Amino acid sequence: MDSSITPLRHGGLSLVQTTDFFYPLVDDPYMMGKITCANVLSDLFAMGVTDCDNMLMLLSCSNKMTDKERDVIIPIIMRGFKDAAEEAGTQVTGGQTVINPWMTIGGVATSVCQSNEYIMPDNAVVGDVLVLTKPLGTQVAVNAYQWLDQPERWNRIKLVVSEDDVRKAYQRAMFSMARLNRTAARLMHKYNAHGATDVTGFGLLGHANNLAKVQKNEVGFVIHNLPVIAKMAAISKACGNLFGLLQGTSAETSGGLLVALPREQAAAFCKDIEKQEGYQSWIIGIVEKGNRTARIIDKPRVIEVPAKDRDGELW
Amino acid sequence: MDSSITPLRHGGLSLVQTTDFFYPLVDDPYMMGKITCANVLSDLFAMGVTDCDNMLMLLSCSNKMTDKERDVIIPIIMRGFKDAAEEAGTQVTGGQTVINPWMTIGGVATSVCQSNEYIMPDNAVVGDVLVLTKPLGTQVAVNAYQWLDQPERWNRIKLVVSEDDVRKAYQRAMFSMARLNRTAARLMHKYNAHGATDVTGFGLLGHANNLAKVQKNEVGFVIHNLPVIAKMAAISKACGNLFGLLQGTSAETSGGLLVALPREQAAAFCKDIEKQEGYQSWIIGIVEKGNRTARIIDKPRVIEVPAKDRDGELW
Repeated sequence: MDSSITPLRHGGLSLVQTTDFFYPLVDDPYMMGKITCANVLSDLFAMGVTDCDNMLMLLSCSNKMTDKERDVIIPIIMRGFKDAAEEAGTQVTGGQTVINPWMTIGGVATSVCQSNEYIMPDNAVVGDVLVLTKPLGTQVAVNAYQWLDQPERWNRIKLVVSEDDVRKAYQRAMFSMARLNRTAARLMHKYNAHGATDVTGFGLLGHANNLAKVQKNEVGFVIHNLPVIAKMAAISKACGNLFGLLQGTSAETSGGLLVALPREQAAAFCKDIEKQEGYQSWIIGIVEKGNRTARIIDKPRVIEVPAKDRDGELW
Repeated sequence: MDSSITPLRHGGLSLVQTTDFFYPLVDDPYMMGKITCANVLSDLFAMGVTDCDNMLMLLSCSNKMTDKERDVIIPIIMRGFKDAAEEAGTQVTGGQTVINPWMTIGGVATSVCQSNEYIMPDNAVVGDVLVLTKPLGTQVAVNAYQWLDQPERWNRIKLVVSEDDVRKAYQRAMFSMARLNRTAARLMHKYNAHGATDVTGFGLLGHANNLAKVQKNEVGFVIHNLPVIAKMAAISKACGNLFGLLQGTSAETSGGLLVALPREQAAAFCKDIEKQEGYQSWIIGIVEKGNRTARIIDKPRVIEVPAKDRDGELW
């Protein structure tokens, strides 16, 4: 499960809690703060928890930063983190900072819930469909962007993408990672979701497998469609599947929710998210009888997701 | 304040939460795990919270460890952490591990409390006395122990301490740091404590000042007595006050609680802890009229605390 659930001594309440920290991956410290916060909260959202009661921020500053760099960058990261927390209706009340050669950034999200406020992830049934609420390819986009400054690497992919493609994909990835999965969490209740997880470091297939493994029923997940940030599939192929994007093993940061929904509700779930947020979701697979594993079919349909800004304008 | 307190949506409850992480400082991984857990919990105990509902563990493994070292050491650290959590009546339900050149270790402690379960730290009044529940000198002891293998440093202190003194002090410091402040937290309620903090990285005076700063009344703290692990004062002096032990600025790890208590209750508080745990506490100062600062008098009385084991036997 994406969060720990601990029954409390008081009034049938439970403590739902998660922590996560990782390395910075975008060059905009404000966006990095937002992404970190969105990524931490995502574990709560995956449980259908929409109200986080408190956040803590965890930081390792790099000892390779100058004092000046630290004094400028860290407050901006913290502001991004706090702004995203506020956007999620919560607040950051504390944290801890240490020094280490490699910078890491993360947090703790805590919610005290009644049992109807969270959704156990283990109730998928045969006939459900699987919805993904953000496109894949964030890691590929971030790496390709870094390769713009590394000629020997750039040369490997410049035949399949332009510099402009990469910059757009990077922007799209950055905004996607900073986007909260909160609307999806809220709508999981409205559309009777049978369970969900968020797609992060183990990639789509890794997390789909983790979700399949915990199911109460004898089910398996089959994924047919891969919504991918435009051009990222081409990059992954040009690199000899280095990332495993089309195999479902490419790491994501602050990815979408993968939600098992009753077939008749899934389209409405996707439409509702789009209405509220202006972002598409996709039905990517089905739940069938099986042995609690997930797989991607041999030739999945790759859905190229164009880079759009918040208002839905194509860049 | 040592923990964040967040009012919850449910039934007059509050979320009391703290996080801390730092670098390993003893060479026994099991004890290191216990110390880390005791240190994280100490921030709850300083608020008089005795029941922690959940803990998370935070770890940065060093990339300089071999796989073998990592596979041996990390589980032992985790066992120490978990055992200390169990001793405190709580459990570890999750956490996060990353890689970084420098190892760090820490955790998150969370309690959901009614308002009578925690004690705000800001109610000291003129006439209160200050109690400290563990001796000072953990950092000096840890450093002196490391110097046993560094001849040029050892030469600076070998005239004032024997190798045996240092080994005993190190053992004493290790057990002291691993000891929970939970009994003290429980007795804060019984003896009507007016506020407390735990003594850690800023040293006794730093934390005394932090506690003084938040007081509602116009009070100041004056510290007369410094209980110090035996021989550590001599080492600190021999190093030209490098540590600032007698100035109250030597960092402590998982130090004792500094508690403001009504004068007529303080002795009973100390006696009760000793009865339950076999460890001494000390009345170290007074609360007088003042401008919310703390100070140590010019020639404080140094109380040499002999190294004792758990059963109170002198080593």
